[in-house]
Amino acid sequence: MNYGLVIKILGNLLTVEALLMIPSLLIALYYSENDQMAFLTSIFITGIIGLIMSKSFKYRNIIRAKEGLVIVVFGWLLVSIFGSLPFVFSGSIPSWVDAFFETVSGFTTTGATILDNVEALPKGVLFWRSFTHWIGGMGILVFTVAILPALGVGGFQIFKMESPGPRPDRIVPRVRDTAKILYKTYLIITILQIILLFLGKMPLFEAALHTFGTVGTGGFGIKNASVGAYDSTYIHLIIGIFMILSGVNFSLYYSLFKGRWREFIKDGELKFYLAIILGSIILITLNINKTIYDNMGLALRDSFFQVGSIITTTGYSTVDFNQWPAFSKLILFSLMFIGGCAGSTAGGMKTIRVLVLLKLVRRELSKVFHPRAVLPIKIGDKVVYDDMVTSISIFFILYILIFTLGTILISLEGIDFESSASAVAATLGNIGPGFGFVGPTRTYSQFSYPSKLLLSLFMLLGRLELFTIIVLFAPSIWKKELL
Amino acid sequence: MNYGLVIKILGNLLTVEALLMIPSLLIALYYSENDQMAFLTSIFITGIIGLIMSKSFKYRNIIRAKEGLVIVVFGWLLVSIFGSLPFVFSGSIPSWVDAFFETVSGFTTTGATILDNVEALPKGVLFWRSFTHWIGGMGILVFTVAILPALGVGGFQIFKMESPGPRPDRIVPRVRDTAKILYKTYLIITILQIILLFLGKMPLFEAALHTFGTVGTGGFGIKNASVGAYDSTYIHLIIGIFMILSGVNFSLYYSLFKGRWREFIKDGELKFYLAIILGSIILITLNINKTIYDNMGLALRDSFFQVGSIITTTGYSTVDFNQWPAFSKLILFSLMFIGGCAGSTAGGMKTIRVLVLLKLVRRELSKVFHPRAVLPIKIGDKVVYDDMVTSISIFFILYILIFTLGTILISLEGIDFESSASAVAATLGNIGPGFGFVGPTRTYSQFSYPSKLLLSLFMLLGRLELFTIIVLFAPSIWKKELL
Repeated sequence: MNYGLVIKILGNLLTVEALLMIPSLLIALYYSENDQMAFLTSIFITGIIGLIMSKSFKYRNIIRAKEGLVIVVFGWLLVSIFGSLPFVFSGSIPSWVDAFFETVSGFTTTGATILDNVEALPKGVLFWRSFTHWIGGMGILVFTVAILPALGVGGFQIFKMESPGPRPDRIVPRVRDTAKILYKTYLIITILQIILLFLGKMPLFEAALHTFGTVGTGGFGIKNASVGAYDSTYIHLIIGIFMILSGVNFSLYYSLFKGRWREFIKDGELKFYLAIILGSIILITLNINKTIYDNMGLALRDSFFQVGSIITTTGYSTVDFNQWPAFSKLILFSLMFIGGCAGSTAGGMKTIRVLVLLKLVRRELSKVFHPRAVLPIKIGDKVVYDDMVTSISIFFILYILIFTLGTILISLEGIDFESSASAVAATLGNIGPGFGFVGPTRTYSQFSYPSKLLLSLFMLLGRLELFTIIVLFAPSIWKKELL
Repeated sequence: MNYGLVIKILGNLLTVEALLMIPSLLIALYYSENDQMAFLTSIFITGIIGLIMSKSFKYRNIIRAKEGLVIVVFGWLLVSIFGSLPFVFSGSIPSWVDAFFETVSGFTTTGATILDNVEALPKGVLFWRSFTHWIGGMGILVFTVAILPALGVGGFQIFKMESPGPRPDRIVPRVRDTAKILYKTYLIITILQIILLFLGKMPLFEAALHTFGTVGTGGFGIKNASVGAYDSTYIHLIIGIFMILSGVNFSLYYSLFKGRWREFIKDGELKFYLAIILGSIILITLNINKTIYDNMGLALRDSFFQVGSIITTTGYSTVDFNQWPAFSKLILFSLMFIGGCAGSTAGGMKTIRVLVLLKLVRRELSKVFHPRAVLPIKIGDKVVYDDMVTSISIFFILYILIFTLGTILISLEGIDFESSASAVAATLGNIGPGFGFVGPTRTYSQFSYPSKLLLSLFMLLGRLELFTIIVLFAPSIWKKELL
């Protein structure tokens, strides 16, 4: 382990975080509420520690897979720890564990909250809270699209699939350039949504914060009733559409900007993603209309919003979907596992993995009677190689395993079957709200500290594609070697 | 498809079934209740149709994988259809769908019942009901140990693993001989348990019926309170131990009889199976003792029985474990998926599959830093080849997929999350009772007919290792070709 370099880069990350707190400070100054000192202190501490870390160690300029993994995991962790300072210093969240939970939830774009009354927060803190989603979303884009393939370690680089295709450089190959393109796309979508919400008569401040939660597929609301506080079909529609847009592979937008429509339209994952959304909306609309709504238009509106919110793992709500019949809830529950497209800000297992697994099952069935046939699995017109298929299967097994063990552990809180399962699914999949005890009208505040830390771990596990964190338990990573 | 031969063999099966109804007829005659005519008629109809089918078609003596699959699936189906005749004719279960559900549940050794008052049944019918478990258990042993490997079709022959080991003929290779050895073992265990229960002052009739339900890992009780009706720790213990024994790979007993202790002791699946049982008993004992029992001895007794009952997918109960805290229920729920050892009468995914999947995950993790290392997966001292590992992964994916879709469909009954999930897990895994709406004090009687048929399908799917049934939907199987 090249400790010197790792600490230096982590220090740089903290310095950047300190800079990213400045907008929140400005908001605090503008509204002159009681959170100004909190941000000043946080910026100072984070910045100083960041600078010390980045300047005081000798290092060699060698970065390998293990260093990359450690930087990513500890980066997310450190940024969450220091990001929780404003919450604690401002008194908005007095408990360190709670503040850590909230910040992890922010940076992992989960959106699970422990705040029972979010409307009481000062504006600066509120801004920072939502801004962590936006930063986290950008971080995850860079991580999955640029860093993971570069690390080249096994088992979780979904994007490997992209490169051996007919056009090896369809997305600009170098990490830095890739990241730049993603930033731009992300920024354009953000600005677009803010404008559209503003046009729908949402105040600018609220429009910005909801947009952060949407494009990061985070889901921190700024009203206790989440998006349900806005009685405007237009606003529901805009946020709904942008959630679904944010669950799409961002490299497809790049293709689109470059005028390569065909790549966009022919994308197998995108088609499957939209098909699941459409199918779920129809089934849930029919189900809730029959059982509780008796108003097809309203049922469609709420079903559309909730399906979009859950499959993209955003977690906003316009209604208390915990009151919906089990059929609709179970569909939403399944969507929590599917998640959005790879290379988006969404969590969950990712649509493409589910698609590959379904194709794998289908191939096995046809193999029974054609045991010698070589049947490659294709997504769109791209072949998914067998080692990738194996990795995806293992990812699925591990995901279900962690979900199962997690649910059993969380049930020790004394909560029921459904609440335990959905709390774990909603944190592991980076959704936010679940059902029952963690339903959309409830928060995570009632959990014990150990459970809150465990749930924070699930958020990080889910966000960092499981393996990234688990491999850190291998002792071989931590050996100090001569470079 | 060699239709002639398939029909002939199915006819033979029905003839055998008619003969197997004779003991029930004798019981009915002995107790001279109102079910004598029901058995006479059932035997006559089943026997005649069986004879007609086996005698009236021309066939060529060629049997391939596809014929084998069709015989197995339609065999189980036909035997269930004709096996339901005594229930209907005796008036014990007036509805055809209910009677079919009950008989499928019997022959698949599930033990899910639609009878709200089982104590009202005449003795002959009661005997037949439990006897279907015993027949089904024997059938599944022959199916998995003898037929599946012989068919040689992909994806579900767990036993393939046994043969490439150092001793290719450690279990007598020919199908017929294998079956004979299994029969003998099965019979010995059955007689042993009947004697031991009889020694515990259980009447002979009841001892026999409970034994059928135990060694077949079925779980049809003959009291409304299941085994809980017997207030005897000895009886709980005997049934508990024999459930666990029945969840062990039967070929290990053969090794044992032959004095090959080492094979028994070194078996990786057996060790894992016993470790899961032990771990679950400890966790549940501590949990229920702390929350509701406050009596460690009693907590241990009930935890032991319930863990044994669920992991072996028997489904007997001594207490209403639906009242246990979510932690204990979730452990039991997980055991429903694990199931007993391969080559036993137990259902579920089978312990060995779970073990292989865990080892696969572990290998993937160590691969991250040794990408070029060849690390074979071993169970005990036997290597599991990669194509087998892939098949097991796909089996897992398909199992979870069917479980998920099944749960969503069953929730249309208007029952809650937990009830839907456990109803599907309990039928797909051939357990019987679940939680909530299908808890141990409830029955499946309240489901609609479509749901009962769907749940029957799940029982068959689970029992026949999923693929056996699903491949029948391939049109290529049904082509009539010149032989």
